[in-house]
Amino acid sequence: MDRRKFIRGAGLAAGGLAASTIAAPAIADSMPKLKWRLTSSFPQSLDVLYGAANIFAETVRQATDGNFEIQVFGPGDIGPALKALDMTSDGTVEMSHTASYYYWGKDPTFAIGTAIPFGLNSRQENAWMYDGGGMDLMNAFFKKYGVYGLPGGNTGAQMGGWYRKEINTPADFSGLKMRIAGLAGAVMAKLGVVPQQTAPADVYPSLEKGVIDAAEFVGPYDDAKLGLYKVAKYYYYPAWWEGGAMLHFFVGLDKWNSLPKSYQAIITAAAAMANVQMQARYDALNPGALRKLVSGGAQLRPFSGEVMEACFKASNEVYAELSAQNADFKTAYEALKAFRNEQYLWFQVADGTYDNFMFSLQQKGAL
Amino acid sequence: MDRRKFIRGAGLAAGGLAASTIAAPAIADSMPKLKWRLTSSFPQSLDVLYGAANIFAETVRQATDGNFEIQVFGPGDIGPALKALDMTSDGTVEMSHTASYYYWGKDPTFAIGTAIPFGLNSRQENAWMYDGGGMDLMNAFFKKYGVYGLPGGNTGAQMGGWYRKEINTPADFSGLKMRIAGLAGAVMAKLGVVPQQTAPADVYPSLEKGVIDAAEFVGPYDDAKLGLYKVAKYYYYPAWWEGGAMLHFFVGLDKWNSLPKSYQAIITAAAAMANVQMQARYDALNPGALRKLVSGGAQLRPFSGEVMEACFKASNEVYAELSAQNADFKTAYEALKAFRNEQYLWFQVADGTYDNFMFSLQQKGAL
Repeated sequence: MDRRKFIRGAGLAAGGLAASTIAAPAIADSMPKLKWRLTSSFPQSLDVLYGAANIFAETVRQATDGNFEIQVFGPGDIGPALKALDMTSDGTVEMSHTASYYYWGKDPTFAIGTAIPFGLNSRQENAWMYDGGGMDLMNAFFKKYGVYGLPGGNTGAQMGGWYRKEINTPADFSGLKMRIAGLAGAVMAKLGVVPQQTAPADVYPSLEKGVIDAAEFVGPYDDAKLGLYKVAKYYYYPAWWEGGAMLHFFVGLDKWNSLPKSYQAIITAAAAMANVQMQARYDALNPGALRKLVSGGAQLRPFSGEVMEACFKASNEVYAELSAQNADFKTAYEALKAFRNEQYLWFQVADGTYDNFMFSLQQKGAL
Repeated sequence: MDRRKFIRGAGLAAGGLAASTIAAPAIADSMPKLKWRLTSSFPQSLDVLYGAANIFAETVRQATDGNFEIQVFGPGDIGPALKALDMTSDGTVEMSHTASYYYWGKDPTFAIGTAIPFGLNSRQENAWMYDGGGMDLMNAFFKKYGVYGLPGGNTGAQMGGWYRKEINTPADFSGLKMRIAGLAGAVMAKLGVVPQQTAPADVYPSLEKGVIDAAEFVGPYDDAKLGLYKVAKYYYYPAWWEGGAMLHFFVGLDKWNSLPKSYQAIITAAAAMANVQMQARYDALNPGALRKLVSGGAQLRPFSGEVMEACFKASNEVYAELSAQNADFKTAYEALKAFRNEQYLWFQVADGTYDNFMFSLQQKGAL
């Protein structure tokens, strides 16, 4: 995709308005006083996830000299965490900060906006969204729900979760009651896992009492807050269902179209800034948290090759089933898959080799 | 570093001005008509590097409804490519888009803003700059040259360059006339390389005539434009001197301080957007370019472990020498090194394992 086209595209939806803005006195139209509400799916306790919305809102406020105020609300303030998209669609709020895969129950295509098993890593998600047609493709889909989406943060590859027993072979998944949601849960179910929905606050007691056997959450920094190593010490990696997990800012489509072009440009840039800075923040915080978890007793374990292969096979079965049922999913999945396959051809060369050499130096204490 | 502090920090330098802005009628102060000149170190032919400045300038223009225009100039339009920093320092231009390591001859500390041998990868550079104290630390140094720097793009890990003969052991570097600049050239010199300065247009004929034996450039997308596989077919990876190469936007410090806080916020967000989108564009374009190079006859070769180890050792010698001579270098290098070592502890876990599994699937044609 052409970059200039992308940037200009930010203003296209407001075509008529932008044209009149040029003719009219500049100030009144370009810096109107606006007060919007943004609902976040993330509690303040998950400060990096929640914080990305603050970075965004604060940038918009400063860039408009306080004329465009976006107030950030947490789950429960206006409505439930997982209704952020719905509240944006129906105009309860002007915008939201959430993960599109939370809404995969409405349509599995939503999962592709965030992460799918054996999908893209964090950098590749940016490449697909900004430059590989991903944003246009996903927005053509989001439009059906009356929202416009902008990439709004990433966690990087997540951890595979906490387990009360070791997972050595695919058979060890059989009968496992695991807190895991969405598409990943559907794949895990093929391997015999019984996926559970568990609110973050309930994960610790549920593992402690054996109500569940395993739970996936995010990565070291967020996981450390739950203290799960005390009740399920085996900490597996990676989350093959989240090689990168991209968040979105959703804006009601009519609200987006009503904005002056200048405000659309500011929102676009502020979202990109929140996007890159959220990943930066997780990357800066995760190493210390990992050390803390390991010194607290967490037993780090990689999923074996055999386990990963079985999960990959199960994922492809789920993709085939969903593609047969849902044309939007098929279109988006095939676009992402083609992009992914080219990305992994290239990433193993310069980036992969460089990183692997640095890992080897770290492992032998040479850094 | 606290995120809010970082965002607010964008306006701190303009303290007095910002305070008066609040009291005065908002519009006149917050959206003044400004026309700035930005000089880029990159020719238009390197469209991704040059293009990042256009993304930036176009975003600023749109965000300010055309009131703040930043005109982008290429090398030679106002002054030479490698005088971009100097022209920003002395007020010839208000800002520039360049790589700080071009100026390492003034002070080797400049190298740390872009990339140093066996330094950070692209994501880690963002983490260090935005969240690990890197921006504050580098700006304390840049201040001596009268400029304020903002991260402004990245290439990702680069390729190790084009060689007329195979490099199997460190001894093969001995006597090699190689186009390689900066700190990497100083490290290569320890291995017997004779570093050469060669303008991009001269690289092909110099290799063809044997004036040089090897040349490093960027990555597949830019390298493909030079057609070097025809005259030096061995294409090595990775560039251990550029695990990621971060560009900067430099703004004259007095110019930065004279801006209303709203324009500072817009520049900060637009630079972050250019930063993430330049990396995205390279990632999207490199796979196809790599295919083209290989089908044209390029022989892909990884540097051997023995070669990489020797280069790492030589790099550490150079770091020790520079640290003994230069206190700014020592401070910045030690901060970056401590951050790097923690980063590589973590990156090998979730991200590294995920990527390596995906590489294995790609290699066996399973994707």
